[in-house]
Amino acid sequence: MTMTSAAIHEDMGTRIEEALRQRFVHHSAAAETYGSEFAALWRAAADHSLGGKLVRPRLLLDIHRALTLGDPSTLTPAAVEVAAHIELLHYAFLLHDDVIDGDLTRRKRPNLIGTLAAGTPAATEEGALHWARSSAILMGDLLLTAAVMGFARADVSADVRARLLDLVEETIVETVAGEHTDVALSHGIIAPDLTTILSMSVYKTATYSFSLPLRAAALLAGSSTSAERTLTSIGRHIGLAYQLQDDLLCVFGDHRSHGKDAYSDLREGKETAIIAYARSTGSWADIAPRFGSADLSLGDAEELRDLLRTCGAEAFVTDLVGDQLDAVHTLLADAQLTGEIGTDAAHTILSTVSRLEGRRA
Amino acid sequence: MTMTSAAIHEDMGTRIEEALRQRFVHHSAAAETYGSEFAALWRAAADHSLGGKLVRPRLLLDIHRALTLGDPSTLTPAAVEVAAHIELLHYAFLLHDDVIDGDLTRRKRPNLIGTLAAGTPAATEEGALHWARSSAILMGDLLLTAAVMGFARADVSADVRARLLDLVEETIVETVAGEHTDVALSHGIIAPDLTTILSMSVYKTATYSFSLPLRAAALLAGSSTSAERTLTSIGRHIGLAYQLQDDLLCVFGDHRSHGKDAYSDLREGKETAIIAYARSTGSWADIAPRFGSADLSLGDAEELRDLLRTCGAEAFVTDLVGDQLDAVHTLLADAQLTGEIGTDAAHTILSTVSRLEGRRA
Repeated sequence: MTMTSAAIHEDMGTRIEEALRQRFVHHSAAAETYGSEFAALWRAAADHSLGGKLVRPRLLLDIHRALTLGDPSTLTPAAVEVAAHIELLHYAFLLHDDVIDGDLTRRKRPNLIGTLAAGTPAATEEGALHWARSSAILMGDLLLTAAVMGFARADVSADVRARLLDLVEETIVETVAGEHTDVALSHGIIAPDLTTILSMSVYKTATYSFSLPLRAAALLAGSSTSAERTLTSIGRHIGLAYQLQDDLLCVFGDHRSHGKDAYSDLREGKETAIIAYARSTGSWADIAPRFGSADLSLGDAEELRDLLRTCGAEAFVTDLVGDQLDAVHTLLADAQLTGEIGTDAAHTILSTVSRLEGRRA
Repeated sequence: MTMTSAAIHEDMGTRIEEALRQRFVHHSAAAETYGSEFAALWRAAADHSLGGKLVRPRLLLDIHRALTLGDPSTLTPAAVEVAAHIELLHYAFLLHDDVIDGDLTRRKRPNLIGTLAAGTPAATEEGALHWARSSAILMGDLLLTAAVMGFARADVSADVRARLLDLVEETIVETVAGEHTDVALSHGIIAPDLTTILSMSVYKTATYSFSLPLRAAALLAGSSTSAERTLTSIGRHIGLAYQLQDDLLCVFGDHRSHGKDAYSDLREGKETAIIAYARSTGSWADIAPRFGSADLSLGDAEELRDLLRTCGAEAFVTDLVGDQLDAVHTLLADAQLTGEIGTDAAHTILSTVSRLEGRRA
């Protein structure tokens, strides 16, 4: 029996969710030993973690299936496990990111910290926040550990496991380096030039969100080292395109549809590629005084948006996105010519890219 | 050629330090790729981490040697590696602990956060602290990852490695649960009764500081499961004794000799076994109003100390320490009778205990 593409996609989502749910059930049960507060923390983490779009694990399984030309029944449990643990790694990064950024919401709803702070019987608001942030640091540690454990325990050959361990370690170091650079940028400790901002974006987001699932899929499918290298580059380009697209949406997008806080990057003074370009133009003198004001009015924000448009920053970053997508197409075409990557895998990657292009509207 | 006990001890210390130094050199070199700030963070972490007393890795190697009856030349590189990675885990816990506790010093010198905050070009003091704390969260993540990797890559049989992974995961979960309980206690979210405080101490400190090295040594030496279980219990009792002894020293000790801030626990309102006992006595009404005052004068602190002495808290906790040590002696005697633990290993454990007894003065 063959399954339709949509049915396969749904089946994979179900299997990943099931694997994730099992992890949380296991940890929540083990947590009971340590008292009700610790068990409650695990349950809250599960509530906030489950129900996401599972972009990263789905990408791994889609590419793995394409690389092995298998139907979903041949999907190895090891691939599902590794995919689920990449999602746990994602949650771990989000938690420590939210602590560092002082965020209490994510996509307009309370994040784990916001929920814990609101529900705590701590005496003061400061105490409630400290309790919530400390809990988030600790839950991040637990999820980070769980994620690495998933790689260390993967039911694959010793050689593949050793390479998976190298991959996840390299990924964590690079992601943390990207986050560290982001914090340094936010304090003016390093200069916000375009090159720094672009590599920070690759390190902080693209590497773990795109290169990691692609490379893990290649490793688990027994692909060649050169195919893995090509997928690493492809992942970086797709990830950077996603991040730049996110930056564009926040400033120039339709805020009713993309679910983010309108102009939040401008209020927070976030150093993006848009801003790096604008700094090099004559319009910066008009933008600078209001950039990073927490109480920026809607009118002021719209004026900044218009300035960023007329100074050429929007067009520049839109072109950068195009460059990334062109690079993906070129890498894929070359890899198909040499037979490094098959038609199915190329098709799967291109459909990920086209979902990205759909977000441009 | 046989080595004296002191020479063996020194040789082990050198080998652990060398293994740790190599880890930091490796990571610092890899960090250069991500810019000078990230490389500087690794160097600062190395400065703050190296040069410690290496209590945990030394305990592992001492017991491992005793269990295998080997001379130091038979010391497996795997044991040295696992020992060094236990020290990295210790640093990771300390860093996140310091972030959560808001500490800028450790043993009267600036900790990593204090050093980074003092050296940063961030514009405001608040900015400098945020930069330093964010860096410490991120370095903790890196060291936690590195520690788990050390277990995952141990050069031992697949079976021993699987058991080492279970051990380190269990240890991390338990330690984090202990820290979480400690934070909950500090906010009055859970009641500070004696049972909670004693199990918190075991979870937060004893498990990773004593049970982990003892159990890892047993696993690496191929000891029986029952020997491992006995060593787990012994580790908990020794660790709890150490923690209680620390609590006693902070309030009743000679502050010129133990290197801690005099009465800091009383100023911070730390929920210890001493305080849990005092709460149950008539003296609590006199202690409570001043307990946890950040600006407690030396005179007031000394008065609290005297109240804690006369109400019986000092004697009660001193007895608790004695109970822990008695339990160790009983467990060891039984294990020697059944042959579960040999004379050498028992002797090594007793010398650890006697170093603890030396701290009572």
